[in-house]
Amino acid sequence: MTQQLINLTRGVPPVDVFPTEDLADCFETALKRDADVLLQYSHAGYAPLRQWLGARHDASAEQVLTSNSSLEVFMFITQTLLAPGDRAFVESPSYDRAITLLRRTGAEVVGIPLEKDGVDVAALEAELQRGAPVLMYVIADFQNPMGVTSSLEKRRRLVELAEQYDFWLVEDAPYRQLRYWGEDVPSLRSMAPDRVLHMSSFSKILSPGLRLGYVVGPEAAIAKFSQWALDSYIGPVLPTQGMVYEYCQRGLLDANIEHLKALYRPRLETIRAALDEHIPQATWTEPEGGFFVSGDLPEHCHIADLIQRGKQVGLKLSNGRGFFPNPENGNHFLRIPFCSLTPEEIKEGVERLASIV
Amino acid sequence: MTQQLINLTRGVPPVDVFPTEDLADCFETALKRDADVLLQYSHAGYAPLRQWLGARHDASAEQVLTSNSSLEVFMFITQTLLAPGDRAFVESPSYDRAITLLRRTGAEVVGIPLEKDGVDVAALEAELQRGAPVLMYVIADFQNPMGVTSSLEKRRRLVELAEQYDFWLVEDAPYRQLRYWGEDVPSLRSMAPDRVLHMSSFSKILSPGLRLGYVVGPEAAIAKFSQWALDSYIGPVLPTQGMVYEYCQRGLLDANIEHLKALYRPRLETIRAALDEHIPQATWTEPEGGFFVSGDLPEHCHIADLIQRGKQVGLKLSNGRGFFPNPENGNHFLRIPFCSLTPEEIKEGVERLASIV
Repeated sequence: MTQQLINLTRGVPPVDVFPTEDLADCFETALKRDADVLLQYSHAGYAPLRQWLGARHDASAEQVLTSNSSLEVFMFITQTLLAPGDRAFVESPSYDRAITLLRRTGAEVVGIPLEKDGVDVAALEAELQRGAPVLMYVIADFQNPMGVTSSLEKRRRLVELAEQYDFWLVEDAPYRQLRYWGEDVPSLRSMAPDRVLHMSSFSKILSPGLRLGYVVGPEAAIAKFSQWALDSYIGPVLPTQGMVYEYCQRGLLDANIEHLKALYRPRLETIRAALDEHIPQATWTEPEGGFFVSGDLPEHCHIADLIQRGKQVGLKLSNGRGFFPNPENGNHFLRIPFCSLTPEEIKEGVERLASIV
Repeated sequence: MTQQLINLTRGVPPVDVFPTEDLADCFETALKRDADVLLQYSHAGYAPLRQWLGARHDASAEQVLTSNSSLEVFMFITQTLLAPGDRAFVESPSYDRAITLLRRTGAEVVGIPLEKDGVDVAALEAELQRGAPVLMYVIADFQNPMGVTSSLEKRRRLVELAEQYDFWLVEDAPYRQLRYWGEDVPSLRSMAPDRVLHMSSFSKILSPGLRLGYVVGPEAAIAKFSQWALDSYIGPVLPTQGMVYEYCQRGLLDANIEHLKALYRPRLETIRAALDEHIPQATWTEPEGGFFVSGDLPEHCHIADLIQRGKQVGLKLSNGRGFFPNPENGNHFLRIPFCSLTPEEIKEGVERLASIV
């Protein structure tokens, strides 16, 4: 019997959620209305989209820089702010690609242990005593890879410490709008707009192929990043920005987010129930949104062995070590993305996983 | 009397050349055919476009990396190949943005004087004696800013020296397909495909807002740049790549290039004749294509003074100093882009220029 491989590695949306017809229609409208702008050179992005994003974040267009993905925005931020020998803090675990970009600058990347309600504040304070960072990179909502959300109390403390030790909080929020139940926690930016660089993107709420990301922050900082971006590529790809602006203008984005939430909610319910039922010996996080749930595997269960055993049962697993500044801390860590799998695939996947843990 | 300002600064196409209707139609076709790919994450770009570009350059898809502008490609190349203290050679003058990206790596940027038929070979050989570079950045066709084209003989010598001293030739060729008269000179890449990284883009032959550039080179080098690009932004913006692929597939690109050549040719004829007639005291280059003509102004005429006087007669001029690794060498250098001006604007602009030189 040939088994269908179940892929539990990358955090990508399922392809059947892309609103192709609407996007094609918006593209035509946008291009025919504003071709002279959309097909010509620009700088910080399509002005109407920057304005629209600004309004959504209680900011002016001058406080918004758009780019070809929020990862690229983060590259510009890190290259502008960090020099070799500087310190940069991340949650541990954190988004592996963010860690790679931080390391590229020659900065020392320090991981602060992440708990179920945000970073371990005592560990953060101890590390601050050793030396303040230039920035701390935080995914406060439905964190990648853990799936946890920082509590209001810990967010307040983060902001206080950032003020006290004078460092930037880089708040990466691509999953924030995908809350399947429970209440929103105020963003870090809403608490300290002068201290926070709030990044987000359309990858998880519309389409990753668009590579449309942005950062909202104080005007002077945005101007610096914009100059670095200008020197890097002159300006971002514009016609797709025009298309997305039209899509947002028509009110389709919010409708799409509701559609995605309705689709992903039962998937998260299914995976949480299945993990608790079939693999109670591991400790699983309890996300209320986003793309990921994660677990600490039992001591005897090394992630490298598990990946090997997964191949025998038709299961593709991520190596959790890459998410930790110190990879040794990830020997028993498993991240599971659930959005691109149907509830049936999720149940089957978890049963296979249970058979090898 | 209010004069219309004539802008002689940036090398941008006129907006009325953008084939808006065709592009919108190609976008719809591409997206409806291949949405699952174009709206999802990718790596080195849209595979069919890489294949198409490869075929056009006698290369495989694996020898092509696409990105969001050729400037961004050059950023990836420079960051991958250069470390602080390395040497990088450029023509002097050269594209100011390329110089900026080279300097960003901490490399020492060395300018080799550019003559009417390519670099001063004796100066290049003398500089090589002092230390070979990791790469030399060359715009062999209709150079930015000078407008000159390297002779076959000098290209051969460049390739020989690159082999002998073991450095990369980065051949930037955005204007190569815009030859208004005369014969093509073989590309550096055609002479030494293992030694040359050939960059180009759709900015000057279709639309700059697309930010669609690429590099063709040896597979191992392309793989390295692709990994760096992947770490930087995962993949480039894809829907516009699908649109451009469809546009190329339909044979529209070559037709568009012919249309542009027919439009730009009389503009170049007009500016060359006007400069010779009205400002014979300067030495003007004699381009056969591209976007720029340039001049060495008489000794008494400093570019900074000229820019000031230009404002009084409704003329916006570029400061030529930025094109030179040593800005002092640009005190009497003027670059004039001519493509976005009508022949009437060109005549009027040159007459105003004559009045202040």
